Amino acid sequence: MPFLTIHVVEGRSDEDLSCLLDSIHAAVLDAFSVPERDRYQILHQHPASRFVVQDTGLGITRTSSRVLIEITSRPRTTGEKQAFYAGVCARLDAECGVAPSDVVVTVTENGDDDWSFGHGRAQFLTGEL
Amino acid sequence: MPFLTIHVVEGRSDEDLSCLLDSIHAAVLDAFSVPERDRYQILHQHPASRFVVQDTGLGITRTSSRVLIEITSRPRTTGEKQAFYAGVCARLDAECGVAPSDVVVTVTENGDDDWSFGHGRAQFLTGEL
Amino acid sequence: MPFLTIHVVEGRSDEDLSCLLDSIHAAVLDAFSVPERDRYQILHQHPASRFVVQDTGLGITRTSSRVLIEITSRPRTTGEKQAFYAGVCARLDAECGVAPSDVVVTVTENGDDDWSFGHGRAQFLTGEL
Repeated sequence: MPFLTIHVVEGRSDEDLSCLLDSIHAAVLDAFSVPERDRYQILHQHPASRFVVQDTGLGITRTSSRVLIEITSRPRTTGEKQAFYAGVCARLDAECGVAPSDVVVTVTENGDDDWSFGHGRAQFLTGEL
Repeated sequence: MPFLTIHVVEGRSDEDLSCLLDSIHAAVLDAFSVPERDRYQILHQHPASRFVVQDTGLGITRTSSRVLIEITSRPRTTGEKQAFYAGVCARLDAECGVAPSDVVVTVTENGDDDWSFGHGRAQFLTGEL
Repeated sequence: MPFLTIHVVEGRSDEDLSCLLDSIHAAVLDAFSVPERDRYQILHQHPASRFVVQDTGLGITRTSSRVLIEITSRPRTTGEKQAFYAGVCARLDAECGVAPSDVVVTVTENGDDDWSFGHGRAQFLTGEL
């Protein structure tokens, strides 16, 4: 927790995909104060025509490097979310060559009883986490 | 925003997939009063056996044309949601030949601070949107 | 409702994938008191490197049999969720050979007006469900 689903256009190298996953996880660690191994990520690659990212009239140009990140998490403060948005853009730009104009993020929150990390237990309720 | 994930059975033509994406976006515009370029869509194609849509006992028959739409959005009124359900079925039927019996929709809501559309900013908070 | 998205590492047989889907649905029926045909499931297969499941420091070892289950549902009690976590692990272990240490679950809740099961209607509002 959090759990991230990451969408990109198909055609990137394995090395490039690993860069994305690593940079995004580093941004999670930076912003959310979670343990190093609190890492749950899925990456989907899509044909460009099946992965539509426009701009709500903001005047942002998207490229084939666009990345959309869905986050499911227990509640985070507005400040933590803002720190993640800024941080993940800075890292993806510096570490993977993805421009900040190509990064879209959406967060959905759930609660302590909404997670089981294994063994059929809800570890936020049992005191294990 | 909203962000839509659309699921279909594999085997449709590119033209058909584009029809689905365009019709669904038109239904979003009709129901949710968002800007024309407020378009964020992903489409997944699945083998039929890995995309199970039954009917909760409602007596609805599904076909290989079935479409399941997941929507993540800031809060919408019940009326807006109902307008979307009706509107997307009408459009998919008229424009893409998908029967209303083959359309399932589920919505999940989040908040103003849960969206960043680029540049690492939360545009609903900054006043840009 | 609920709607489940199930993630596994690619390479399983069709028979094995069906076992997973059937066992998980049986666990839904056991825990959530929903109709037999309240079955909405999608399964994604991923290359191992694009499906990262660590352990938040809990000391849980994951294998290539790991399964991550996302559930979107109307509100469930904590007891129902805990029953699902335990039950789905027991079934996946007994029926499909997936160890409880390889099963991660996350739940997101929505409301009565967030579902349309066909025909453009919100069946939890119309009295049909």
